Amino acid sequence: MPQPKRASESHTIMTEMVLPNDTNTLNNLMGGRLLHFMDIVAAIAAQKHSNRIVVTASVDNVSFAEPIKLGNIVTMKAQVTRAFNSSMEVFIEVWAEDIPAGIRVSTNSAYYTFVAVDQSGRPIEVPPVIAETDDEKARYESALRRRQLRLVLAGRMKPQEATELRALLVGE
Amino acid sequence: MPQPKRASESHTIMTEMVLPNDTNTLNNLMGGRLLHFMDIVAAIAAQKHSNRIVVTASVDNVSFAEPIKLGNIVTMKAQVTRAFNSSMEVFIEVWAEDIPAGIRVSTNSAYYTFVAVDQSGRPIEVPPVIAETDDEKARYESALRRRQLRLVLAGRMKPQEATELRALLVGE
Amino acid sequence: MPQPKRASESHTIMTEMVLPNDTNTLNNLMGGRLLHFMDIVAAIAAQKHSNRIVVTASVDNVSFAEPIKLGNIVTMKAQVTRAFNSSMEVFIEVWAEDIPAGIRVSTNSAYYTFVAVDQSGRPIEVPPVIAETDDEKARYESALRRRQLRLVLAGRMKPQEATELRALLVGE
Amino acid sequence: MPQPKRASESHTIMTEMVLPNDTNTLNNLMGGRLLHFMDIVAAIAAQKHSNRIVVTASVDNVSFAEPIKLGNIVTMKAQVTRAFNSSMEVFIEVWAEDIPAGIRVSTNSAYYTFVAVDQSGRPIEVPPVIAETDDEKARYESALRRRQLRLVLAGRMKPQEATELRALLVGE
Amino acid sequence: MPQPKRASESHTIMTEMVLPNDTNTLNNLMGGRLLHFMDIVAAIAAQKHSNRIVVTASVDNVSFAEPIKLGNIVTMKAQVTRAFNSSMEVFIEVWAEDIPAGIRVSTNSAYYTFVAVDQSGRPIEVPPVIAETDDEKARYESALRRRQLRLVLAGRMKPQEATELRALLVGE
Amino acid sequence: MPQPKRASESHTIMTEMVLPNDTNTLNNLMGGRLLHFMDIVAAIAAQKHSNRIVVTASVDNVSFAEPIKLGNIVTMKAQVTRAFNSSMEVFIEVWAEDIPAGIRVSTNSAYYTFVAVDQSGRPIEVPPVIAETDDEKARYESALRRRQLRLVLAGRMKPQEATELRALLVGE
Repeated sequence: MPQPKRASESHTIMTEMVLPNDTNTLNNLMGGRLLHFMDIVAAIAAQKHSNRIVVTASVDNVSFAEPIKLGNIVTMKAQVTRAFNSSMEVFIEVWAEDIPAGIRVSTNSAYYTFVAVDQSGRPIEVPPVIAETDDEKARYESALRRRQLRLVLAGRMKPQEATELRALLVGE
Repeated sequence: MPQPKRASESHTIMTEMVLPNDTNTLNNLMGGRLLHFMDIVAAIAAQKHSNRIVVTASVDNVSFAEPIKLGNIVTMKAQVTRAFNSSMEVFIEVWAEDIPAGIRVSTNSAYYTFVAVDQSGRPIEVPPVIAETDDEKARYESALRRRQLRLVLAGRMKPQEATELRALLVGE
Repeated sequence: MPQPKRASESHTIMTEMVLPNDTNTLNNLMGGRLLHFMDIVAAIAAQKHSNRIVVTASVDNVSFAEPIKLGNIVTMKAQVTRAFNSSMEVFIEVWAEDIPAGIRVSTNSAYYTFVAVDQSGRPIEVPPVIAETDDEKARYESALRRRQLRLVLAGRMKPQEATELRALLVGE
Repeated sequence: MPQPKRASESHTIMTEMVLPNDTNTLNNLMGGRLLHFMDIVAAIAAQKHSNRIVVTASVDNVSFAEPIKLGNIVTMKAQVTRAFNSSMEVFIEVWAEDIPAGIRVSTNSAYYTFVAVDQSGRPIEVPPVIAETDDEKARYESALRRRQLRLVLAGRMKPQEATELRALLVGE
Repeated sequence: MPQPKRASESHTIMTEMVLPNDTNTLNNLMGGRLLHFMDIVAAIAAQKHSNRIVVTASVDNVSFAEPIKLGNIVTMKAQVTRAFNSSMEVFIEVWAEDIPAGIRVSTNSAYYTFVAVDQSGRPIEVPPVIAETDDEKARYESALRRRQLRLVLAGRMKPQEATELRALLVGE
Repeated sequence: MPQPKRASESHTIMTEMVLPNDTNTLNNLMGGRLLHFMDIVAAIAAQKHSNRIVVTASVDNVSFAEPIKLGNIVTMKAQVTRAFNSSMEVFIEVWAEDIPAGIRVSTNSAYYTFVAVDQSGRPIEVPPVIAETDDEKARYESALRRRQLRLVLAGRMKPQEATELRALLVGE
């Protein structure tokens, strides 16, 4: 198994300016374009953690609360939260700024999962994650619940076996 | 409230050819680009159902099982499953074809949610959905569970109140 | 010679949303961008018929009657009409919708011709087309006249030999 | 009626490098992308002649004889041939060069037609064309035949009335 | 005059993945595409300093020492160095990483100059810059020399008056 | 050493229409996008002179005097001025036209430098340049001064040795 690495070593910041082709007829950034941006910054974080080519395995539920306008600056921060064999969960936070107006809002966050692969596309083991800050530790712990939810939703785990998930969703 | 409309009236088919800029260094379609395509076809289905401008409200968990190669043809089918006041859930199915090789595989499915808005961006009521086929009826029924999961994950519903969700995830 | 295939097996639907970069200063879809979209949907139909890589051999006269606006949904349907050795004629129909306004208009139709090639780019024989519906039969019949017109315009057939074409253009 | 202008005043040269996203799986420029390039250079020539916003009205039969490779330089020359009230016919010639290999081939030519419009999109009269060189005069003369063919193909002229066209196509 | 702001408040990080369309036939990032990326990150830094819309006024000499490969991650850091009335000089540093290979190289640095403008495009005064670190102070000092070089090269200052520049270039 | 070639043999014209995605929130062409266009036309000129693959080595100071608007036509002319072993300096001039308004302005000029390389990316000698017109001769002569400035700015030549540069910048 590769040597463990600190979560913070995978930290990645990406900045994009919202251009006309990214927007709908209300001049707001389209949700799908933001999902595309988030996939790229998260993939780079996963590459940094694993030093491997990575492929997107899943995206968890994402909700879009705030419209992001044409000409806004979108800043995304991504960091690996936890690894499971060849897969890595990445947490992404998104802010939008209308700089001339002095407005900056938190618009989204999401978890994407990636699998590290070799040149033939076969999964390959990645380093365990060392969580250091309180936030990193909390995300490391809850990663297990999110993983169970993914497996249950994908039909690959029985709800009865998802013991961590029960705690999250059923309040038991 | 607007007159109910049949689910099938929103049926939309989109076809894309995977181009070099859509791919990673393994020559596979990047997950974020596929999420972008799916958002567009689903938005068109939601537009057809509501005859309104629509904005993406959320995307549910999506997993990427099969790599889609450069030059493949991606076919996506989207249809509204159920409406809740101003929001609509859309189901999207994705196939990838390597036509010269005679290979066609089902690669993904997903649920996106859209909100219909007026010209000022304010939510506006949409027609109820009439489910006709067995598939449409099953998706109409289960839409309630998926909606509860979205609300719980977004912190807008307490797990204890998500009665439909318990049935789905906890097997009770 | 490959086994004949039904025209309907090549049926392909493509949907595009008109984005800002696709439009001119009147906010209308540029003609060249539409020709580009049509080439892609037609190439996919020709791929489906031949199960081969295909290259565009020609496009027949296309006229643009109706402006298509920014934000409109463009739906294109393509289907192979007839095959001649290694070449296939594809018929494409185009509709534009302003869905919030409830307007849908037929804007264009066109014939593109493709050649099936092997991995080295050499032409290779394709299946004959079986026309079933009345429309398919009519397009199958008239394909001969259109082919003669292409050959005459390309200087590869003498007008005197284009017996089918005389019937079309000169009303004899 | 606006003052006549020389054909050569509309002369426009456009150069494009063939990039990966412009190519098919054989690494050849896709026909639809070339039609898109040609539309832009021809629109600029029509703008220069009319000093108006122009919209594409039609493209005549185009055939694609030579493959154009990834990394090739595509040079297009466009010039107005003749005006008819608010419409202008533009002739475009295309060359492809593999400069390191020292190869330059003529690959295509085409006629596009544009209509000059005012800010509301209404057709507006354009200057007549003064043909000076032998080539310009020949294209000016034959423009009438091509126009008749367009009108007959669009069902807007009866074949019997297309007297110029008979000369072209039937060799009478 | 607006209140002075610390140089570090304008700090901006942008990350890009090199995609096929960004590369030449050697699969290296094209210089012009990198100049385009650098302009965007620098414009964002200048926006942050001025809280205004900004337009590019000039780019200083940039040299490209290291090839950047397809699939590499390009990280750019930009920060305002000094302001002169309505103009701001921004320093940009560029790194390229081949993450699977564990290689990260410094590839470029550059100075871009921006002018802050109001909604009508008229220049408007920006805050002076407070340089804090040694690096910031050194760049603040040398900004005067670079500005003189720009003015001399643009023919807007006589070489004899460029007293700072003499020190830089002539070693006096 | 390859046979000398005339400067005019590398002459290249490129025309671009300013599209929405090329513009900032004032609807003006972004400076970085123009630098990208200029790199492409200059690279083609350098390819024509050397009949080699070329890579961008540097861009000299460029200033942006005039805003270029959405929908404007940008015309660029590029020509090699002088060669130094494997490197070539290219001069690019840029005009912007608002054709319906009958306005054409000279907006920019710049010098880019390219290195000719073989298939492995190694520098390879290029033909000397024959300057014929007065303009070509003047640019050929001053190329030496610009080269010294590039070397001094890159720290690869001592200011004291840049004898030509002193004449340019210090008026001695």
